[in-house]
Amino acid sequence: MTSDIEQGRELKPRYGADGLVTAIVTDAADGALLMVAHMNASALAATLSSGEAVFWSRSRQSLWRKGETSGHVLKVREVRVDCDQDAVQLIVDPAGPACHTMARSCFYRRVTPDGGLERVDS
Amino acid sequence: MTSDIEQGRELKPRYGADGLVTAIVTDAADGALLMVAHMNASALAATLSSGEAVFWSRSRQSLWRKGETSGHVLKVREVRVDCDQDAVQLIVDPAGPACHTMARSCFYRRVTPDGGLERVDS
Repeated sequence: MTSDIEQGRELKPRYGADGLVTAIVTDAADGALLMVAHMNASALAATLSSGEAVFWSRSRQSLWRKGETSGHVLKVREVRVDCDQDAVQLIVDPAGPACHTMARSCFYRRVTPDGGLERVDS
Repeated sequence: MTSDIEQGRELKPRYGADGLVTAIVTDAADGALLMVAHMNASALAATLSSGEAVFWSRSRQSLWRKGETSGHVLKVREVRVDCDQDAVQLIVDPAGPACHTMARSCFYRRVTPDGGLERVDS
């Protein structure tokens, strides 16, 4: 981990062996965690140039413009990187539910004391 | 993607080929994104049983109790899973800066319009 990666002013994403960084999407309105996806260099470039979130679909092995079918696009207000530049944060204005299940956030269940799950829709 | 994984009440993490899920840490106080790490089944079990965040260090290939050297432990208030159960959210009370650089959050730089980075410490 070089100081340059951590403290520098140059965007140098550290893509993994699969060519991807983790992309974490939070709501500009209240900071809520909405979803997690992945980006390759093309997805990040398309996101930065278009101002809307574009991910890499690992299942389809193709670029995935979020909302291209649902209309639930994510308008990107700001992109941040973490200390070692292997993850990015997208701060967005969502046009609808971020989750394909139609929940606002993909994180709609919590672990209960007995180790099960329960819904926590906000 | 089965409905059971998405809608069920059973915790069934979908570990990747590397045996890991993504772990996203947010601050219970205000929802702010603090850091991203990874967990294998042992790390998740240790987190749930101890109430403090335990991750899997990919660089050291060992369990990593966050704060074991710095004292900046993350007291876990709630654990959530995402729709397809390949990511977890830890909602925590941090005992200090989450980032090893001593920033509150690892996401302390944003991408500027010219494609560089600038600090955005809150």
